[in-house]
Amino acid sequence: MSLVVGLDIGGTKTAAGVVDRTGAVLATATRPTPAGGGPEAILGTAAELVRSLDGRRGIVTAVGVGSAGVIDPRRGVVVSATDALAGWAGTDLRGELSRRLGLPVAVDNDVHAHALGEQWRGAAAGRSDVLLVAVGTGVGASVVLGGRVRHGAHAVAGHAGHVSVAAAAGVPCPCGGQGHVEAVASGPALLREYRSRSGAAAADLAEVARLAEAGDPVAAGVLAEGGAALGSLIGGLMNVIDPEIVVIGGGVAGCGEAWWRPLRAAVAADALPALRGVPVEPAALGGTAALLGAARLARAAAPDPVEEDL
Amino acid sequence: MSLVVGLDIGGTKTAAGVVDRTGAVLATATRPTPAGGGPEAILGTAAELVRSLDGRRGIVTAVGVGSAGVIDPRRGVVVSATDALAGWAGTDLRGELSRRLGLPVAVDNDVHAHALGEQWRGAAAGRSDVLLVAVGTGVGASVVLGGRVRHGAHAVAGHAGHVSVAAAAGVPCPCGGQGHVEAVASGPALLREYRSRSGAAAADLAEVARLAEAGDPVAAGVLAEGGAALGSLIGGLMNVIDPEIVVIGGGVAGCGEAWWRPLRAAVAADALPALRGVPVEPAALGGTAALLGAARLARAAAPDPVEEDL
Repeated sequence: MSLVVGLDIGGTKTAAGVVDRTGAVLATATRPTPAGGGPEAILGTAAELVRSLDGRRGIVTAVGVGSAGVIDPRRGVVVSATDALAGWAGTDLRGELSRRLGLPVAVDNDVHAHALGEQWRGAAAGRSDVLLVAVGTGVGASVVLGGRVRHGAHAVAGHAGHVSVAAAAGVPCPCGGQGHVEAVASGPALLREYRSRSGAAAADLAEVARLAEAGDPVAAGVLAEGGAALGSLIGGLMNVIDPEIVVIGGGVAGCGEAWWRPLRAAVAADALPALRGVPVEPAALGGTAALLGAARLARAAAPDPVEEDL
Repeated sequence: MSLVVGLDIGGTKTAAGVVDRTGAVLATATRPTPAGGGPEAILGTAAELVRSLDGRRGIVTAVGVGSAGVIDPRRGVVVSATDALAGWAGTDLRGELSRRLGLPVAVDNDVHAHALGEQWRGAAAGRSDVLLVAVGTGVGASVVLGGRVRHGAHAVAGHAGHVSVAAAAGVPCPCGGQGHVEAVASGPALLREYRSRSGAAAADLAEVARLAEAGDPVAAGVLAEGGAALGSLIGGLMNVIDPEIVVIGGGVAGCGEAWWRPLRAAVAADALPALRGVPVEPAALGGTAALLGAARLARAAAPDPVEEDL
């Protein structure tokens, strides 16, 4: 039996899972990411998680990693990262982890890993051309074509957050630009907008979603506008990329129909008529998507890659 | 010597060229497209052009066609077309032309053919991942990945005209939507805007470009806003697709620095820092790009395809 470990290294926690060739997750383990401790600490935690799952059995043949930050999968390094992972940029993620574990390692960023997971065993299973959009702290995307992630000429493909949309006209973006979808559609943007309009101190976006569902017109309006802005982005990208399916993940996608209904309406308004039947679906795997996608990467890096799985 | 004919079927004229395996155009011929005469007339003119170039020599081994409209290259049919080509939608372009000529025929839409031409022997020669944007009567695009046109799951990939951008917020689009880049960046939109702002009756966009170059602030302002809107679209698409090079063609790209300078500034404002060195270049082949790209398609359809050319 060929087993691999998929790792999902995020700003707050690192999750690992043992995955078989069918995509079944046989065991998982999670630890807080020592995000302020530098690359040595982060790599150490990741390696310990793999060892804890593999035990003394030594039956894991490869490791795949989905990591926050911009990752160059060809060189295996972290190109850049936010301050959430101190010192992460420049880390030879593949080389360092492979040296610690004595196993082949494949790496990619967490959004791409998320997309691969959904395409392997989630909402996009059986599809080869997928647009995955993840909306949480920011807005990111991954374009899977012919079953493979599009990384692009500079390993930055999929950065959909800083794309201009009409719904964000004139709104400043944290990046320094303006008019970008992330400025009006990210979780923090929605929460800030709700607090500003209502004068109420909602604890988090989940509370805003509950208020919207209970009929609060301010909460519903904020979610509708954010959903519509994201839908407009998605409709436009569908016109250019023409995927078989669109999958939406990330915390904001859990905001319910107050967010999804206007999102779907905006997709329908901006996508070409020929694309109106394209499914736009919520991600199905939740927190295990990136881990599964990382495991799928690992299968390609394993000494005995099984092509029919890839 | 392996020769093919490339055909470029547009709303006003049909151009044909004999092309050798290096991409050299050995002979060309052009006729008005009998656009109102129905598919029989359009196909007849195309076939006559091929025969006039091949003469009695019979040395042409295949024909490639770039045609206006949405073309499904796999089925070889015209999926949809504007009123400029009456009755064109539904035509079995590949089958009908192949039957008339007794030669293998490959077909695609003219924007994709344009992109392939520029990628074979034009501004994107030597690059395999190219974003081509064509701005004329409308705004279109073609995404070439790994040297192949991305057609998408429904043969509509590249339709960048009806993508939302902040610069078009609130502006109605001829498609019935609003906020789409085509509504503010197409040639007709720029000419209409100049006439509206100036009260002057510029004959065409070339006159607006001349006025801008001569220092007319209204003309310069209109071209700057149109260029910036297109640049914003391009910057956003670069973030998602991450091409090696961007090539801009179509009549509006001939508007000079009054249009190009704000376009480049908008690309720089919206593209990620990692992409700031990506070349954004004017198309180099002018009117022969689509013909050359069609010829390249023909090489793949020829009985003796020469792989190193493809």
